[in-house]
Amino acid sequence: MNVVDKLIENTISTKNPSVIGLDPDIGKIPACYKVNAKRNNPFEAIANVIYEFNRDVIDMVADLVPAVKPQMAFYEKYGSYGVAAFEKTVSYAKSRGLVVIEDAKRNDIGNTAGAYADGHLGCVELLAGSCSPSFDADFLTVTPFLGSDSLHPFIEACEKYSKGIFVLVKTSNTSSGEIQDVVTSDGMTISQRIAKYVSEQAGTFTGEYGYSSIGAVVGATYSEEAVSLRKLMPKSYFLVPGYGAQGGGPKDILPCFNEDGLGAVVNSSRAILYTHMTNEERAQCTRQEYLLSVRTATLKMQEDIYSVLKNEYRQMVY
Amino acid sequence: MNVVDKLIENTISTKNPSVIGLDPDIGKIPACYKVNAKRNNPFEAIANVIYEFNRDVIDMVADLVPAVKPQMAFYEKYGSYGVAAFEKTVSYAKSRGLVVIEDAKRNDIGNTAGAYADGHLGCVELLAGSCSPSFDADFLTVTPFLGSDSLHPFIEACEKYSKGIFVLVKTSNTSSGEIQDVVTSDGMTISQRIAKYVSEQAGTFTGEYGYSSIGAVVGATYSEEAVSLRKLMPKSYFLVPGYGAQGGGPKDILPCFNEDGLGAVVNSSRAILYTHMTNEERAQCTRQEYLLSVRTATLKMQEDIYSVLKNEYRQMVY
Repeated sequence: MNVVDKLIENTISTKNPSVIGLDPDIGKIPACYKVNAKRNNPFEAIANVIYEFNRDVIDMVADLVPAVKPQMAFYEKYGSYGVAAFEKTVSYAKSRGLVVIEDAKRNDIGNTAGAYADGHLGCVELLAGSCSPSFDADFLTVTPFLGSDSLHPFIEACEKYSKGIFVLVKTSNTSSGEIQDVVTSDGMTISQRIAKYVSEQAGTFTGEYGYSSIGAVVGATYSEEAVSLRKLMPKSYFLVPGYGAQGGGPKDILPCFNEDGLGAVVNSSRAILYTHMTNEERAQCTRQEYLLSVRTATLKMQEDIYSVLKNEYRQMVY
Repeated sequence: MNVVDKLIENTISTKNPSVIGLDPDIGKIPACYKVNAKRNNPFEAIANVIYEFNRDVIDMVADLVPAVKPQMAFYEKYGSYGVAAFEKTVSYAKSRGLVVIEDAKRNDIGNTAGAYADGHLGCVELLAGSCSPSFDADFLTVTPFLGSDSLHPFIEACEKYSKGIFVLVKTSNTSSGEIQDVVTSDGMTISQRIAKYVSEQAGTFTGEYGYSSIGAVVGATYSEEAVSLRKLMPKSYFLVPGYGAQGGGPKDILPCFNEDGLGAVVNSSRAILYTHMTNEERAQCTRQEYLLSVRTATLKMQEDIYSVLKNEYRQMVY
């Protein structure tokens, strides 16, 4: 099954095109997860806290969202122990039926890019010559700065392993325009030129719903740019960061969608995981209290986005 | 001590501005490293082979090169076990007096970029509130696609932890020009604009020799571009990929250096680690035979580069 179809089916069944960014922040994970952490190795202790927290969050939202987006940086910072917590999180999320979008913004050339692609999306050769999945994410975010030959190995992996990528096209941060908005000799911005390339590649990866697993990252904070990018990449799924904590609201993300209410998933991390409680509340709450609060925040985001979409797009398929 | 000074002092003492890329390729590591690999867990078995191979290579070349450049993709592909082998490799290389340039091309925004920076270059907060180094590399490569605000956290980490970065400015691959050569409204290419930014940041990070730990990646395969980039970034150290297997020769890398014979380190991976022996030889050699062959390849690269530099730059300081 094409992973983009799985993402779409999950979106339709949950009536929710928003995903939760699993960005563990040890300073903000509630105290009740930390009190009994095993402390043989301090990195292992943190990795255990992170995985327990993620597992409970996943259990609490698995029926509400189509996918989770773990951000690799927040695991990798704790070295191999953190990466092990990442692996367990991916595996658990998949076991609960969620699509896993790994946000790692990998980029390199030739066989080095191939190593990233095999490791994150595909399988790797072992000593005995057999091949085994390593991270086994469904989607991976990739950075296109090195040009199209640096993207080929990731696209090949999508074909070989039936996986997907989101290529950074227009990012949500303030400085994104310094490179991405530069106008090239053909009158297109760098973002638009990358979009054109993504769209060309997307063609052969479309699934049942007409969408492609070769997707794009388009920030919620640039809705004007999103209009032209949506036109340039009609078949590509968009991963939309920048909602909530970064300033994007429900109306800003409308241009990322098509008339069918599909074509994009919107990410929120901090507003779902942490900011619905104060520091003091996070210090004193029980796990159950905290998780219910996560569920409430998840439902609120679903309602906010769904109602705006429903109002705008009369041909929504869910 | 500024890490760039350590890199320079190692370069002077070895009379060698070339570094070895530690890119483990399990298909090319000689058979003698694989026969007795413990196989309880197939990923752990590979990680053990990789670390043993790296440790022996480091022992064999520690007196010949100033630094090693492990490429994270080739470790990370084996998940947390591979990352553990990476950590041990970094630690061992540093214990042998080598500078460690981590090639991971990390990039992200805000606190996510901060998580990468702390994890790879600095220290991370543990449950008890204390801070501990995680990967603890000396230098990290970073990709500037998201703009200057995405580079700030890495630059801050360089200041806080006395470390260095190499910002991708002009990469060695065929497609690098698609984005990097685009001419901006001020008449500069994207590469040149990034170079200007790097140079502005470099100023406050200069060490004893007048060079900065805020450096740049400039491919050996684009020597014309290197001329202008060297002028734009007089104080930044260059990390030069693309030598050897990718087609760059000793004369191509000359513009990356200054008159003092400093200002750049040239990387070679495959030509040092693997291609000096045939598949058949790698299947049959002893460890000692293989390692002597690595040493010979390392000495040859040193001689090739040093003789060309010495001939061109009469004011060389080594």
